[in-house]
Amino acid sequence: MSHPDSHSDDERRRTLADELIEAGRFFFARGWVPATSGNFSARAGDDDVLITVSGRHKGRLGTDDLMHIDLHGRPARAGQRSSAETGLHLQLYRRDPAIGAVLHTHSVNATVLSMLAGGALVLRDLEVLKAFPGIATHESAVCVPVLANDQDIARLAARVAEVLDRDPGCCGYLIAGHGFYTWGATVADAVRHVEAFEFLFECESLMRRMGRP
Amino acid sequence: MSHPDSHSDDERRRTLADELIEAGRFFFARGWVPATSGNFSARAGDDDVLITVSGRHKGRLGTDDLMHIDLHGRPARAGQRSSAETGLHLQLYRRDPAIGAVLHTHSVNATVLSMLAGGALVLRDLEVLKAFPGIATHESAVCVPVLANDQDIARLAARVAEVLDRDPGCCGYLIAGHGFYTWGATVADAVRHVEAFEFLFECESLMRRMGRP
Amino acid sequence: MSHPDSHSDDERRRTLADELIEAGRFFFARGWVPATSGNFSARAGDDDVLITVSGRHKGRLGTDDLMHIDLHGRPARAGQRSSAETGLHLQLYRRDPAIGAVLHTHSVNATVLSMLAGGALVLRDLEVLKAFPGIATHESAVCVPVLANDQDIARLAARVAEVLDRDPGCCGYLIAGHGFYTWGATVADAVRHVEAFEFLFECESLMRRMGRP
Amino acid sequence: MSHPDSHSDDERRRTLADELIEAGRFFFARGWVPATSGNFSARAGDDDVLITVSGRHKGRLGTDDLMHIDLHGRPARAGQRSSAETGLHLQLYRRDPAIGAVLHTHSVNATVLSMLAGGALVLRDLEVLKAFPGIATHESAVCVPVLANDQDIARLAARVAEVLDRDPGCCGYLIAGHGFYTWGATVADAVRHVEAFEFLFECESLMRRMGRP
Repeated sequence: MSHPDSHSDDERRRTLADELIEAGRFFFARGWVPATSGNFSARAGDDDVLITVSGRHKGRLGTDDLMHIDLHGRPARAGQRSSAETGLHLQLYRRDPAIGAVLHTHSVNATVLSMLAGGALVLRDLEVLKAFPGIATHESAVCVPVLANDQDIARLAARVAEVLDRDPGCCGYLIAGHGFYTWGATVADAVRHVEAFEFLFECESLMRRMGRP
Repeated sequence: MSHPDSHSDDERRRTLADELIEAGRFFFARGWVPATSGNFSARAGDDDVLITVSGRHKGRLGTDDLMHIDLHGRPARAGQRSSAETGLHLQLYRRDPAIGAVLHTHSVNATVLSMLAGGALVLRDLEVLKAFPGIATHESAVCVPVLANDQDIARLAARVAEVLDRDPGCCGYLIAGHGFYTWGATVADAVRHVEAFEFLFECESLMRRMGRP
Repeated sequence: MSHPDSHSDDERRRTLADELIEAGRFFFARGWVPATSGNFSARAGDDDVLITVSGRHKGRLGTDDLMHIDLHGRPARAGQRSSAETGLHLQLYRRDPAIGAVLHTHSVNATVLSMLAGGALVLRDLEVLKAFPGIATHESAVCVPVLANDQDIARLAARVAEVLDRDPGCCGYLIAGHGFYTWGATVADAVRHVEAFEFLFECESLMRRMGRP
Repeated sequence: MSHPDSHSDDERRRTLADELIEAGRFFFARGWVPATSGNFSARAGDDDVLITVSGRHKGRLGTDDLMHIDLHGRPARAGQRSSAETGLHLQLYRRDPAIGAVLHTHSVNATVLSMLAGGALVLRDLEVLKAFPGIATHESAVCVPVLANDQDIARLAARVAEVLDRDPGCCGYLIAGHGFYTWGATVADAVRHVEAFEFLFECESLMRRMGRP
């Protein structure tokens, strides 16, 4: 006999899967997850994260391209391998119970700015900054830290942790030559953060080419 | 028994709603209303304006994301909250009975030019200027005022009023770091103005990067 | 009783209409006919041209947005008004019986280059030049004349005639601040010319920004 | 009586055709195969290559726009003519039995970089480089040779052969003013290489305009 909660749990997971699949289609249409770049996840339960399988194309995800892992990265079904950067997702879920989704995109603007911005990109005086939690006026500055890229994900995660310890309000970071990470309470919130940051990156990229004073 | 006019009134409102929903889809496809930026409205009756609900995504509007308010911003149904910038829409409807729709978009080009253009952006010598009311030749100049951004919408509206008093032919303005407002007799006219202005902003942005003499 | 030829004539006209409608959708998706800019035509018979009605949106054409005129611009059905620039289309059909379609687009790159290129834009050393009639190698140069804009279409047409007299191989020209005209034996040929020229304009625009030696 | 294998052979060919048609649609939507530029092929058997017919539009391929040739370019059905650049495809299939698909695209960024990059374009320090065979870290450099364009395809193929002899790990080259060639074990692999290279070309193009140090 099925547990009374399993049905709604199943539905919740299907909804999360659909949201990640749809996010991938949207980002792909915008050119923000080229080739097999990017990876997405959502918190599906207390010790349960839904995450993209390693090496899949994020613009054409099916339910088979998503898998469940626990908060230490162990797959629910043996033999599946989640994204190489799984550690960067899980550190956020372990750190903050309010985080429900983590999205990593890889746009041209994010990548190029990550190569040129030095240690941080500071975005200021723009109305769209109000899309981020705790920001109520355009007269704000949002600092997006830029970390050096590293194939050793544990080491990279340790550096991310330092950055987040210093700035607990941080809601996104760049990895040099490797794109962008952001998160939110829900998939919808995290998608909105991607949209807002990508807009800000595109503005920044254009302002730099137009000789902003 | 239903009033003979209510049926056609209902139809007219549904048409207006459909037009705003479709405008949102179009602008979103172009990248002109990222995240939850932008807001749209249309005059639905003598003291009745259809306007987007605060905080909704303009690219995926449904009828539940639109609401009715009167010309002083009071919602027809208690508990609903219209866009924070409702005041900027209503001042136009109160000012000029010929205005039937107001659209606020938030493109990269409009935003960047609003940061770099100083007090006004002057567009000239382009055939597309003929898309605006009263312009019959490319040998014209259209001045798009740029206002400083302000979270106090009443104060911002007062400055917009001054600008419109000085230039009654004005058919669009920029708010620095906050995008673009335009309007027209119908939703279709206002959408055409958005298209024409966005084209002109993109031309201006490109000409500045190509070292226009 | 219907004339044996009328059926196939009707079909041919419907096909031409469908091709122009589809061309408009394609160009609109690319951003090449913003607002109500652009106009299209196709030769439908000896003294019969199918052309867009004045002021219609080229991205959403229906059969009602197309009308028939003779080679002197007289509408087949009284009361209809074809594009203000009809004269620029008809001079081409009168001039060269091999021309079956004329397309006027209005992209950002064409417009900006038309403002900056002086009297002519010379495109060279690119494989895509082979898309044009009579060109068999990339080691060619295609000269796109740039004419000053003029609201007096008869006067503008006279200047176009001078340009075509000087260079009978010309297969497209720019009007400053007003976009691009090209043509071909069929609608498909003219659409291919638009695609090829727009590609070349985009390359030229980018090369100028990248400091081509 | 049909041979037991013919059915699955037919299916495999249909799948390859579908994959090339879909690749064309995707590249066209991105603007990477304007007008009738580009050409695609896939290995369909020991001495059998499926390739695009000369002069067809790659964004709207049907099965009639694809044809079979042997490894020396002879068409399976008399009277059909494959792409003028067939020789550049076949030299790859003859050279390396592991190559299953060859794709030639013609984007603005690839074309412009091919005109400005001199003898080679070097891409480095970017995570997306890991999309290519044998690359496991962003701390890599991928060299994309740039060959002078030539209407004599046999002569061009001879120069390509020299380049590949010198760098057997090469997985893509540019022809000046003529776009890009890449390949892979399957159509999906080759499409992923196109996506990854186009992303890298766009990054390179933008970094050059942003004054990368």
